[in-house]
Amino acid sequence: MRIEIGEQPEALTRTIDALLPRMSDVGLLARGTRQVLFIARGSSDNAAVYGRYLVESHTGRLATLAAPSIATTYKKQLDLSGVLAVAISQSGKTEEIVETLDWATRSGARTVAITNGAGSPLAEAAEVALITEAGDELAVPATKTYTTQLAALSVLALGLGADVDLGDLRRVPDEVERLIALTEASEALPAIVEELAQVPGAVVSGRGIAFGTALELALKLKEACYLHAMGLSYADLLHGPIAVVDDQTPALLVAADAGPTLSGTIALAQRVKSAGARAYGIGGGTGLAQASSLALPGPALPEWVSPLGLIVPGQILVENLARRLGLDPDVPRGLNKVTQTD
Amino acid sequence: MRIEIGEQPEALTRTIDALLPRMSDVGLLARGTRQVLFIARGSSDNAAVYGRYLVESHTGRLATLAAPSIATTYKKQLDLSGVLAVAISQSGKTEEIVETLDWATRSGARTVAITNGAGSPLAEAAEVALITEAGDELAVPATKTYTTQLAALSVLALGLGADVDLGDLRRVPDEVERLIALTEASEALPAIVEELAQVPGAVVSGRGIAFGTALELALKLKEACYLHAMGLSYADLLHGPIAVVDDQTPALLVAADAGPTLSGTIALAQRVKSAGARAYGIGGGTGLAQASSLALPGPALPEWVSPLGLIVPGQILVENLARRLGLDPDVPRGLNKVTQTD
Repeated sequence: MRIEIGEQPEALTRTIDALLPRMSDVGLLARGTRQVLFIARGSSDNAAVYGRYLVESHTGRLATLAAPSIATTYKKQLDLSGVLAVAISQSGKTEEIVETLDWATRSGARTVAITNGAGSPLAEAAEVALITEAGDELAVPATKTYTTQLAALSVLALGLGADVDLGDLRRVPDEVERLIALTEASEALPAIVEELAQVPGAVVSGRGIAFGTALELALKLKEACYLHAMGLSYADLLHGPIAVVDDQTPALLVAADAGPTLSGTIALAQRVKSAGARAYGIGGGTGLAQASSLALPGPALPEWVSPLGLIVPGQILVENLARRLGLDPDVPRGLNKVTQTD
Repeated sequence: MRIEIGEQPEALTRTIDALLPRMSDVGLLARGTRQVLFIARGSSDNAAVYGRYLVESHTGRLATLAAPSIATTYKKQLDLSGVLAVAISQSGKTEEIVETLDWATRSGARTVAITNGAGSPLAEAAEVALITEAGDELAVPATKTYTTQLAALSVLALGLGADVDLGDLRRVPDEVERLIALTEASEALPAIVEELAQVPGAVVSGRGIAFGTALELALKLKEACYLHAMGLSYADLLHGPIAVVDDQTPALLVAADAGPTLSGTIALAQRVKSAGARAYGIGGGTGLAQASSLALPGPALPEWVSPLGLIVPGQILVENLARRLGLDPDVPRGLNKVTQTD
């Protein structure tokens, strides 16, 4: 996992170079569609959450997440005319996702696949396949396949006419490189690892474009560290689960260095601390760092591409915490690399 | 909370009587729309998850959940023509939800409100308001306002032409009455309470039409018992978080007594036990009961209305566990009855 975290700058460069020329294919396919429907599970589902906020906030199209069981378990046909269905799967071999994309096609949707599996059943099933160039990923917890999926989603949004600067995306690989070094040199890293090693669970929260990062960090903490990590949006957290935060239940908060969700995240850190709990910030600039008990740096990137870097300090934290707990982060118990669900 | 759990049969009867005549209003409003978009937070969001599976599996319309922050934080206009927006809020006073429904109206959607607040801002803002008849709810954790929301969603689905038997809905109040007595007499109840009192966290899972029940039970366990409860769909659980299940992390599994998701839930109980963890079943008939370590009965109702009863043994479990832990289930720390988020 550590090696693959370090391979992300190169994997991102390859993926961005390969996919930027495909923007126009996406734009052409999307003509005559009015909304996006993402189809995914696991880490890919967390990538899709980034995709939905990015598409909605920057292209003005409705973008939501599908319930695959409607296709695979209930076997119910829907009217998906005017829908651009975007299926995301690292391997491209998860039968549930392939079956749901086939169902979307039969339901009248136009189809895109985002996968690291060139020639995989998912890539073959879609009208446009955006193949990520992560290379082989051996550790079970996804790292470079996840961040390259986010890069593909950035290209998707650009293809849909997002009102953003393409140059920001090109800056991501260097920024991830810098952030890996910065995180590993941070004095806060071993301190947070040591504190998290003493607690049974944590809340992980973020909002809007950073919400998918919070969900992905919570997933990684569960699968690699067996921590009871509860991933919740800022607003959902305040509707009940904030009660769970206490001296045995810290909060990990993620945010871009700037953007409309930052002030709420800073206020949340203050609220967590006033409840007698520890708040660990990732990103969010000096504002979140100052409001937190301990903080890791985030990427110096505009909000729309910030998730491509924001998960990286989290990945390093997870890898370090797993080793501190005496666990092998590469092979969590009970998991295989390709998950088959029905 | 205990009193309000017991008031559910009457609250459901009143709500069903009041709302069934409104079916045609929903049908009329929905003409010219092709899909449903739910707007909600907290317990209401868990109700919306039931609504989306019910609408998709029984009416053939796409039904998904909105991201309110697109309206309230990013302030981005989307094209929502052809969308039936359904906002759900117990009080009808949560500004974020009212603001998002107003945004949906400006974006071209037709609008429905589901709320217990007659005359509330949300009820006034919608074209059709389905007012639940739960009466005053004093405990912070929602019980009767939640199940009456589910009843309103059943009526919504009927108004959209769901291929189900309306008579099933009329049977719900008596079945909830019977289930309360059955659960409180169950020998498994104190046993599960005692075991859950010893662990820091649990996974709560269900699939399809029962998924919203799993999320709602997880929310209640977090807010009233401060348990690290992780609500996950059956499929998402297998994509990573299954690693977290162990002798300190049992699984609570919910399912209707019959239906396409039952066999997967039974298989999940077996998998949890084979990982050395405890599995507690709620509902799922004799199949899930036999596959579980301990089990509570579920409602004898067809799958499409089963969530109106399936949460009830969970509510009783939460109330008993909170008292066992020395907590006041009516007033969790850090929470108010009406939650304001922006």
